[in-house]
Amino acid sequence: MIPPINLIDAFDRVTDYWSPKVIGEVNDQLLKVAKLKGALVWHAHDGEDELFHIVKGKLRMEFEDHAVDLKEGDILTIPKGVMHNPVAEEECWVLLVEPASTKHTGDEITDRTRSLEEQMS
Amino acid sequence: MIPPINLIDAFDRVTDYWSPKVIGEVNDQLLKVAKLKGALVWHAHDGEDELFHIVKGKLRMEFEDHAVDLKEGDILTIPKGVMHNPVAEEECWVLLVEPASTKHTGDEITDRTRSLEEQMS
Repeated sequence: MIPPINLIDAFDRVTDYWSPKVIGEVNDQLLKVAKLKGALVWHAHDGEDELFHIVKGKLRMEFEDHAVDLKEGDILTIPKGVMHNPVAEEECWVLLVEPASTKHTGDEITDRTRSLEEQMS
Repeated sequence: MIPPINLIDAFDRVTDYWSPKVIGEVNDQLLKVAKLKGALVWHAHDGEDELFHIVKGKLRMEFEDHAVDLKEGDILTIPKGVMHNPVAEEECWVLLVEPASTKHTGDEITDRTRSLEEQMS
């Protein structure tokens, strides 16, 4: 069995923005922590929902026709296929739940795209 | 799209111990909040992992050959098929991630067993 991990301690491993780190799994879903600052990129995940849980700070989730402002403790699931762009004016810590197959920038390849191997390191 | 839910506010809906409430979903996994106090019952979930995230308080997870003490912020996945018994000496708040099909007392039916319909209410 994988030993317990402390969520706050897990963020010590995160040194770069927009570079998720895998910290656990449940039924083929991965738990990842990430520090965000600035905007990522407009993208969608065609076959997979993506859950954002704001651990610290604030995040504005832009959608094509509206935006949702998220604060600490807020949980939002982006349904599969929905275009979105996360924007953090200040540093924001998030816990993500998504399948192992999810690419965090969708099919957009940018200099922020990280392979699953990089996310496991 | 389901609007965001605040994790701490979600616990306001929980009035009984050992009575999980569904607060969200991602890729056929349900997010549930529960308040725990005392011991539940020895059980396993044959086909499904179950993730515990300690939001407030402490939880002792008993296994057949050892126990793990969890504190606030700790995350532990119970692998499918592993017998376990959560014990909270004092009130403990947990966030759970498990498939819609998971029965929270496994195949043990007790007066604490809650149907999915009850968990959605």
